Amino acid sequence: MDVVKLLLLGFCCLASAQYEPNWDSLDARPLPAWYDQAKFGIFIHWGVFSVPSYGGGETGKGASEWFWWDWKGAKESWAVDFMERNYLATFTYPDFAPQFKAELFSPGDWAQTIMDSGAKYVVLTSKHHEGWTNWPSNTSWNWNAMAEGPHMDLVGSLAQAISAYPALRFGLYFSQFEWFNPVYLADKAGGFKTQNYVAEVSMRQMYEIVEQYKPQVVWSDGDWEAPYTYWNSTEFLAWLYNESPVKDEVVVNDRWGQGCACHHGGYYTCSDRYDPHTLQKHKWENAMTIDKYSWGFRREATIDQYLSIEELVSELVVTVSCGGNMLMNVGPTHDGRIAPILQERLEQMGAWLKINGEAIYNTTPWTYQNDSVNANVWYTENKETMSVYALFLKWPTNYNLELGSIYPAPNSTVTLLGYPTPLKWEVTSPTILVKLPSLPLDSTLQWGWALKFH
Amino acid sequence: MDVVKLLLLGFCCLASAQYEPNWDSLDARPLPAWYDQAKFGIFIHWGVFSVPSYGGGETGKGASEWFWWDWKGAKESWAVDFMERNYLATFTYPDFAPQFKAELFSPGDWAQTIMDSGAKYVVLTSKHHEGWTNWPSNTSWNWNAMAEGPHMDLVGSLAQAISAYPALRFGLYFSQFEWFNPVYLADKAGGFKTQNYVAEVSMRQMYEIVEQYKPQVVWSDGDWEAPYTYWNSTEFLAWLYNESPVKDEVVVNDRWGQGCACHHGGYYTCSDRYDPHTLQKHKWENAMTIDKYSWGFRREATIDQYLSIEELVSELVVTVSCGGNMLMNVGPTHDGRIAPILQERLEQMGAWLKINGEAIYNTTPWTYQNDSVNANVWYTENKETMSVYALFLKWPTNYNLELGSIYPAPNSTVTLLGYPTPLKWEVTSPTILVKLPSLPLDSTLQWGWALKFH
Amino acid sequence: MDVVKLLLLGFCCLASAQYEPNWDSLDARPLPAWYDQAKFGIFIHWGVFSVPSYGGGETGKGASEWFWWDWKGAKESWAVDFMERNYLATFTYPDFAPQFKAELFSPGDWAQTIMDSGAKYVVLTSKHHEGWTNWPSNTSWNWNAMAEGPHMDLVGSLAQAISAYPALRFGLYFSQFEWFNPVYLADKAGGFKTQNYVAEVSMRQMYEIVEQYKPQVVWSDGDWEAPYTYWNSTEFLAWLYNESPVKDEVVVNDRWGQGCACHHGGYYTCSDRYDPHTLQKHKWENAMTIDKYSWGFRREATIDQYLSIEELVSELVVTVSCGGNMLMNVGPTHDGRIAPILQERLEQMGAWLKINGEAIYNTTPWTYQNDSVNANVWYTENKETMSVYALFLKWPTNYNLELGSIYPAPNSTVTLLGYPTPLKWEVTSPTILVKLPSLPLDSTLQWGWALKFH
Amino acid sequence: MDVVKLLLLGFCCLASAQYEPNWDSLDARPLPAWYDQAKFGIFIHWGVFSVPSYGGGETGKGASEWFWWDWKGAKESWAVDFMERNYLATFTYPDFAPQFKAELFSPGDWAQTIMDSGAKYVVLTSKHHEGWTNWPSNTSWNWNAMAEGPHMDLVGSLAQAISAYPALRFGLYFSQFEWFNPVYLADKAGGFKTQNYVAEVSMRQMYEIVEQYKPQVVWSDGDWEAPYTYWNSTEFLAWLYNESPVKDEVVVNDRWGQGCACHHGGYYTCSDRYDPHTLQKHKWENAMTIDKYSWGFRREATIDQYLSIEELVSELVVTVSCGGNMLMNVGPTHDGRIAPILQERLEQMGAWLKINGEAIYNTTPWTYQNDSVNANVWYTENKETMSVYALFLKWPTNYNLELGSIYPAPNSTVTLLGYPTPLKWEVTSPTILVKLPSLPLDSTLQWGWALKFH
Repeated sequence: MDVVKLLLLGFCCLASAQYEPNWDSLDARPLPAWYDQAKFGIFIHWGVFSVPSYGGGETGKGASEWFWWDWKGAKESWAVDFMERNYLATFTYPDFAPQFKAELFSPGDWAQTIMDSGAKYVVLTSKHHEGWTNWPSNTSWNWNAMAEGPHMDLVGSLAQAISAYPALRFGLYFSQFEWFNPVYLADKAGGFKTQNYVAEVSMRQMYEIVEQYKPQVVWSDGDWEAPYTYWNSTEFLAWLYNESPVKDEVVVNDRWGQGCACHHGGYYTCSDRYDPHTLQKHKWENAMTIDKYSWGFRREATIDQYLSIEELVSELVVTVSCGGNMLMNVGPTHDGRIAPILQERLEQMGAWLKINGEAIYNTTPWTYQNDSVNANVWYTENKETMSVYALFLKWPTNYNLELGSIYPAPNSTVTLLGYPTPLKWEVTSPTILVKLPSLPLDSTLQWGWALKFH
Repeated sequence: MDVVKLLLLGFCCLASAQYEPNWDSLDARPLPAWYDQAKFGIFIHWGVFSVPSYGGGETGKGASEWFWWDWKGAKESWAVDFMERNYLATFTYPDFAPQFKAELFSPGDWAQTIMDSGAKYVVLTSKHHEGWTNWPSNTSWNWNAMAEGPHMDLVGSLAQAISAYPALRFGLYFSQFEWFNPVYLADKAGGFKTQNYVAEVSMRQMYEIVEQYKPQVVWSDGDWEAPYTYWNSTEFLAWLYNESPVKDEVVVNDRWGQGCACHHGGYYTCSDRYDPHTLQKHKWENAMTIDKYSWGFRREATIDQYLSIEELVSELVVTVSCGGNMLMNVGPTHDGRIAPILQERLEQMGAWLKINGEAIYNTTPWTYQNDSVNANVWYTENKETMSVYALFLKWPTNYNLELGSIYPAPNSTVTLLGYPTPLKWEVTSPTILVKLPSLPLDSTLQWGWALKFH
Repeated sequence: MDVVKLLLLGFCCLASAQYEPNWDSLDARPLPAWYDQAKFGIFIHWGVFSVPSYGGGETGKGASEWFWWDWKGAKESWAVDFMERNYLATFTYPDFAPQFKAELFSPGDWAQTIMDSGAKYVVLTSKHHEGWTNWPSNTSWNWNAMAEGPHMDLVGSLAQAISAYPALRFGLYFSQFEWFNPVYLADKAGGFKTQNYVAEVSMRQMYEIVEQYKPQVVWSDGDWEAPYTYWNSTEFLAWLYNESPVKDEVVVNDRWGQGCACHHGGYYTCSDRYDPHTLQKHKWENAMTIDKYSWGFRREATIDQYLSIEELVSELVVTVSCGGNMLMNVGPTHDGRIAPILQERLEQMGAWLKINGEAIYNTTPWTYQNDSVNANVWYTENKETMSVYALFLKWPTNYNLELGSIYPAPNSTVTLLGYPTPLKWEVTSPTILVKLPSLPLDSTLQWGWALKFH
Repeated sequence: MDVVKLLLLGFCCLASAQYEPNWDSLDARPLPAWYDQAKFGIFIHWGVFSVPSYGGGETGKGASEWFWWDWKGAKESWAVDFMERNYLATFTYPDFAPQFKAELFSPGDWAQTIMDSGAKYVVLTSKHHEGWTNWPSNTSWNWNAMAEGPHMDLVGSLAQAISAYPALRFGLYFSQFEWFNPVYLADKAGGFKTQNYVAEVSMRQMYEIVEQYKPQVVWSDGDWEAPYTYWNSTEFLAWLYNESPVKDEVVVNDRWGQGCACHHGGYYTCSDRYDPHTLQKHKWENAMTIDKYSWGFRREATIDQYLSIEELVSELVVTVSCGGNMLMNVGPTHDGRIAPILQERLEQMGAWLKINGEAIYNTTPWTYQNDSVNANVWYTENKETMSVYALFLKWPTNYNLELGSIYPAPNSTVTLLGYPTPLKWEVTSPTILVKLPSLPLDSTLQWGWALKFH
């Protein structure tokens, strides 16, 4: 019997191991520090779904990575119609795979683009619900990126390119379930009393990706149909924390089985685009998308369906202020490109962070998150430098920024990040007024601004 | 744990079962009588290999169903060249599947054609070494005839069409191993100490086909790399003989693991195109092909590479005379046709058997097989009717057929099958001369003739 | 202005030319002798239609080379259904072209196969009604075999391969009209008052093929919708007979415009499969097909839809006896093969002609064609050797062949072609009886026999 | 003989016609007024080239619409390599056509997007040098958008959608030559002494598009290899100006034969991206591209290879100031989309023109174009309203805009377009200073600003 089998039978865990395969023990593990300091990551959804790359347009507003399900599972009319209009009746979803050619894919360019965005980590879909693996998995015969389509180890290629940037960490998304895998469906039909799919597919794959690519984030998903006991999650995490090659640095999320999200695991993601606007007790992540509706690239997405740079900056500021990280998703195309509109957003984020990053990276939530009189102002703090940052998202027409939550000591210095000289300010109890400088309208200070109180 | 697992662990066999999972017990089972009486069956090799449908022409003379191996395993230059000339470098063997459309497949026409050939059973490849299943197997996700290509249950369709002809029995070929299945390759790499592939793939599939299609022949193949203990063969056969829905009628061959061929199982096939020309102690089968070199259809096969009707009749006569059955293979095309040249051979066999079938079906080997003075004469016997048949493959130019192995009683009747009146004959010790009649050159008595001694 | 324009304007023909562009003059040209001596040729229909290669099966029994018309012109339901079932709604006939790959085409093998069939000439479709040219025509941009599909000059390749066999002559079929060429359709819509299509397309093409490939047969077709004056036929023929590189040897048929067939041109073809069974005053040709219904290869044709070798021999015998040549058609496949069943028929014809060719080649019709008492007997004569041949298609069960039309001189010799010794015969006025020899039933004398009276 | 022939022979022009087929007469035609008032149009390059959609990346920086030529004509290594890497050796450029599906094309959305950009006219490629026609031309059989690919009349669809916006005029680009049309190549090989291509193809097509789609711009191109006499340009223009359905409104450019550009025809385009930065005597157009290197969509174009909105505004300002129109090109994708980055640029232009259009539309060049002391300032004038506009492209850090070329009367009003109250200004001979207002940094006044002197 092999290791996977032993794990399933519960023989895995030596008495001396630090973490035991139960939530009490696992949840007690401290989150490696790098994660909270990073604040901003890039999520990448890429797979066979990038070929149809369609979410139904105005009708559907569907997430394109769910296309197989929308077509064959939910039988959404927009998906069924799209296929009838454009493909033969005998065309199957796997027939899309040969068109996933990635012929213009340049992992080095992707890494550079991500680096320039100011992100500190990147999470790639190793496998989404379709079951296709972006690495040459031994348990996904003829349904992986080496055997079909790109004929390339996409996970490995990107991992290597990212490794050229020590400031960037590499993580992997992994879907526990697969919509149409018959082995999974048989387990499910039997009320999850058998674990053939877990033993033969998902566990083997999670070991493969951790051992081969050493991801520092393991972003689990697709867990909600079955309890964590079916997925073997606690055993896997115990191994990951105790013995795996990434045991010291790895962070995981919270999607490890029915009822786990927002309750167990590493940081909490709770639900997609989770953004509570209030301080949370547990470290959390706002996993969101530049395309408002989809994680996979949607060919039909129009410009108004992409978040503007002002909206993205606002999202980041609010998230970080409330203790979260923001994992901002881009969906590459089937031919291996990050579309120019996405490149532009990434570049804009990078430009903004170059000026304002000091108020984001390595900060912690402050006493207050949102200013009491100015709803467009959010706070962060850098305890090491004893600075508080007030990030404001709207420029006051009279150039006086009124704040109600902060009362600096009289000798405090107030500066605008990116502006060389300190600002004047006055107390106008119960608020203060900060005098903003006259900058030219084509200034590079734009989309959001940060005051530093020191 | 499910049935397959239990089987693997050896818990399957109740004490009261008739056959035990060991060769002594299994080999003792008498072969169901229908098989020996049938004498003549049709073998059908059909799969994704029917798309490239290429064996290398004069250079290769390869069996087209081995194309994947010849290309990617043995790297035969003719196969590599063919792919380089006609396909992109990124084309994979699974990319052939969408072209296996079977759009002209008419199972009813096939059944009629087979019926008219005089065959009494038909054996279809349910799965060849490529792993593609011609039925919608739950263990061959996206690599089966329902999900891809034909989008049809080919096994089920043909089974049903055959069932319209009570005189025809339906059987299934099944390859134990799969050249490139990573689960198998992992077992193999470990010296067959693990049985993951057997538990997860091959056993499940054999149960599926037996339970769903109730084949009366289970024609195992692809067994030679591993011992029968790896394949779980004896356990499977015990179940097949004791409990399966075909336990009374089913016959199997002898390819159940290294060293089994010609030694264990049901009838013996020994090697491809086995034709010993001498009487065998154990019931055997000559599995052979109309295309001299290939089981799968070869597009490039020229007319001289097909056996002529004279050669086929000769092969049948010699085989039956020596106690064998002949399983004559046709390879259909990817679009679902039995090529006209194959139809012609089948039709010719049917015409020949319509006249001469009495000397073939339900016969047993006689005292002698091959005549002592006339090498073109072979004998069979029908014990029930107390008749002996001398089948001759060459017409004597002087119309006197000389025989050295048979001495009929003086009052014996000698007739030519298909000719109304008895023939004259005389003893010319130590031989006899049978006087053949003057038939027109365009007589329907052709390709081989049978004398009946009664 | 170029030559074609001048031709159209009627300036082409010098006063000294032998033939003038009118039927009186052109019809007076004697047919080059080789043609009547040849008797047997092979017709080849190959084009984009070889890709769908479908005539509707039992429902349609259509000629597959008319598929485009049946689908888009006549809108035959079997063709429309076939396309709906197997192709996207947006699929057009030209989309078939890339699949016409001819990847297994070996012109040398074709030439050898044709040579072995006993044929003395071969006629290939240079262009059928679809407009696709099998040579790289300058007037069929992107719709020819060099630019698309085979990426080969099919006409040139075969012409060269045939030239290796001096006993074989090479000819070209050419369709005057094109179903869907808009330039033609515009001329047609205007009642053929303009000749843009002729000037810009058909004339240029006929000059191209004659000058480049020097065909010894120009087999015109597709002429029936318009008068010969529209097609510019008489001007073309005057040039062909007076000035072209093949002016001395070339033969043409009779399809040169409405009303021309059976009345003008070279030999007469009258209608497809023309076979009058009586002597004709003008040299004629029976252009017929081995597939009973189609000139292009039909994938769905079953063995009973191919003429048997007995039927083919009979057709040749009757045709030659009545003064015709037989042009027997084979339709190659899209991948460049002559299907084995066709190879077999060609090989059988060759075997038969090897024995009986003396009664076919270089003969002329005799006094009588069909015997007066035995409907299965047909006569030919070789004036040079002063022999008369009686070809009989059924072997008399009593071995006595009764003939009513021939009364040999008492000292005449009667032999059976392929049999070494002369036969006995007796006069049984008003008929004679020829005593046939006792040949073994597996004799190579088969399918039809020839008696020689000398 | 048909109209085209007559035209070629010069019989076309009635004595009473206003314009004669010579440059003196044609050049004398006044340009219809709408064109100069419009200032800003959108150019659309769409065709089969939108399928490979590749210009060689950093290596090539090629214009993707030239792909066929770069591959098969110039044999640029980047194009040859791209094809070798991604397509079979037998793949031809026409094989791209079936992939030009335009399945997401919504002409109504395009029209709305163009309308919102502030453009007043749109020019679509009816046919580029590849010869493919975006309308169902009778002279481009099987090589047009109705017969292949989109199976739609793209020209007609867009014309109709545009007609829903009375403020938008519709024009058509047309390439005179075709790289690989054999009829053209034959004319060219003969030194353009024959005009078969013009008579049979280009003239017929130009008549088709004018008569069917009534374009108000005819944008000729691909003329440079032959003199205008070959192209029959003066005859065509005489017909267009005298008799065509658009004779009163139509404008044409200057690419009508070797030596014509910048010298004859309607407005001058001179060369691609023509932008002289000085006042021109003749009305001209700056035809330029948002993608810096390509007219057709290039999949590999990165964000830095697109002009920014600041650069586009600058280009428009300078062009209009010097008397030109700007025709800004977008290249749609093969599936019928205007990529989001292009949508964004169009939307940004529309937003800018909504505020600043008063300084652009219906203006004329002023006394000065570029300010004498401030190189970032350009002038326009509206004679009707007696206003002069100073457009400045850089905001002065001290909020004082210094101008050296304009001396307003003391009672002049100076306003900033988009700002409600007049500005203060002072004379500081020899310059003036205009005091700019303090606007918030997130003001919608951005990318360029216009002062109005009245």
